[in-house]
Amino acid sequence: MREELLSRVLSLLPTGEARPELQAYADMLRDYPLRGGKGIRSELLLASARAHGAAPGTPAYEGALWLAAALELFQNWVLIHDDIEDDSEERRGKPALHRLHGVPLAINAGDALHIYMWEAVLRSGVPGAMPEFLHMIHRTAEGQHLDLSWVEHREWNLRAEDYVQMVELKTAHYTVISPLRLGAMAAGAQPDPAFTEAGLALGTAFQIRDDVLNLAGDPAKYGKEIGGDLLEGKRTMIVLRWLEDAPEEQRHIFLQQMRRGRTDKDEAVIADIHAWLLASGSVTQAQDCAHAQAARGLALLEDAFRHAADPQAARELLTVIRALATREA
Amino acid sequence: MREELLSRVLSLLPTGEARPELQAYADMLRDYPLRGGKGIRSELLLASARAHGAAPGTPAYEGALWLAAALELFQNWVLIHDDIEDDSEERRGKPALHRLHGVPLAINAGDALHIYMWEAVLRSGVPGAMPEFLHMIHRTAEGQHLDLSWVEHREWNLRAEDYVQMVELKTAHYTVISPLRLGAMAAGAQPDPAFTEAGLALGTAFQIRDDVLNLAGDPAKYGKEIGGDLLEGKRTMIVLRWLEDAPEEQRHIFLQQMRRGRTDKDEAVIADIHAWLLASGSVTQAQDCAHAQAARGLALLEDAFRHAADPQAARELLTVIRALATREA
Repeated sequence: MREELLSRVLSLLPTGEARPELQAYADMLRDYPLRGGKGIRSELLLASARAHGAAPGTPAYEGALWLAAALELFQNWVLIHDDIEDDSEERRGKPALHRLHGVPLAINAGDALHIYMWEAVLRSGVPGAMPEFLHMIHRTAEGQHLDLSWVEHREWNLRAEDYVQMVELKTAHYTVISPLRLGAMAAGAQPDPAFTEAGLALGTAFQIRDDVLNLAGDPAKYGKEIGGDLLEGKRTMIVLRWLEDAPEEQRHIFLQQMRRGRTDKDEAVIADIHAWLLASGSVTQAQDCAHAQAARGLALLEDAFRHAADPQAARELLTVIRALATREA
Repeated sequence: MREELLSRVLSLLPTGEARPELQAYADMLRDYPLRGGKGIRSELLLASARAHGAAPGTPAYEGALWLAAALELFQNWVLIHDDIEDDSEERRGKPALHRLHGVPLAINAGDALHIYMWEAVLRSGVPGAMPEFLHMIHRTAEGQHLDLSWVEHREWNLRAEDYVQMVELKTAHYTVISPLRLGAMAAGAQPDPAFTEAGLALGTAFQIRDDVLNLAGDPAKYGKEIGGDLLEGKRTMIVLRWLEDAPEEQRHIFLQQMRRGRTDKDEAVIADIHAWLLASGSVTQAQDCAHAQAARGLALLEDAFRHAADPQAARELLTVIRALATREA
């Protein structure tokens, strides 16, 4: 995230002078924010605020900056808990927080960052921001439940539509819809109802792109382990489409591996599966689907911002959106 | 908690009609609230609101009821995460949520209930309630960090004062101070500054009493496993005081067991340690400390409520407080 947001985030967090243990606590809360996420969601929120007429330096933009900080805090507490839930090894090129401090302290640190997120929402003073955050997080938690319950119950009897429903809940709201809406609210404008449909399409494109990068991305840019989704048994459009047409033997081997926990999986077999997926048409097919969804979402937003309060800012917003749906990392 | 609060809590929670997985999610969110906690903190909040002049049936009392529901939701999400952090087996006589559904889904369910807590705070419409909840949860998370970090780092070089500092943060704020303050705020009154000192004393008394019950309580009434704190390696005033004067051999055996994880502890040796603690004077000593703290806190509150808007309600409040500090379960 940009420097002025990071310093805003850090200004909210505790300094922990009272006891050495609370110093360690303060360090844990700062860890993920300091690892330097791309801040693409907060950029989108700020771009939306500007496009809706909140000019930098005005009180309205100040409100948008606090909401952008809150969105970054949201992502960071969710990532801490996600990494535990998926038992991920790495986050942004370093060990996940629970691998450094154990699960109990990491759960608690995630809860604490969650509270600091609400501090930032409160500081914004933007009417309607609190209900919007509540709605956004409800949908994210429902999508997360779908995703995790499929892993927990070894459920593979799923179709691409199930994946899309999960991703719309888990990713689209906090990645696109709410950033667009919160930017409008900060500027004192009514959010365009078209943001929802556009955001569902763009959020889906964003997540499919993430799934593609997880299998076929550049490890240096991506920041998470390549193939990690396979080890974690993630349901992706790529895997679900591949399963529909996979040779029976490959399908059998795949499901056999997926019945095992992460650490019990056979790395050589997972590497075979990885190769089968890349060789099949399903990566390209998912990529095509992402492109189509991104184009549809972009067209809807171009229309919604046709009469934007600040046309230059609206163009910048569409650039941010385009980068988000076609990202390389 | 009382029936009207439970139905208020349940009215906020999702029904999960959209998909079977979301029905399971809805059931997870209702599980702990439906297990029937004692609701002592919400009773305290409501008693404080009445004592400050918010009469049942008035809009002010309606606000207090939503805050009481929020406090119950707070306790329930914290318990879900606590049970994972401590790897507890039971909660209110049934298996802990993560033992029924696995850690990933239970973390997410706790996060979801956390959000519904904020829904209830928002519904209350009580000015100042949001900052009060933020302050309360910050302190609770700091206290939780102290407690968990001692377990994580096998830290036993601690004194009774460290325990008191941890408990003041972890228990006193959400058990006594904030319920008293929130009740006042709901009634439109300025919270008495004496609530803080009184609440720190009473919260400490409450937690020491809990520690005593965990070692020497009636299993039928207590609802958690007797001796569970020893298996979980909890630092309590009882244990810390006992360690100061324990025979070197017992001390050695104790620390040896505490270096092991919960499942690696020797149950027979833990039973010996349990017996040593009960035979030593440290349970009685802790009980005496709890009595003294409770008496000091009560005296402060009697003074603070001497000119209460509703003297009858103030007397009821002091009865609730007395029950809280001398509870049997």
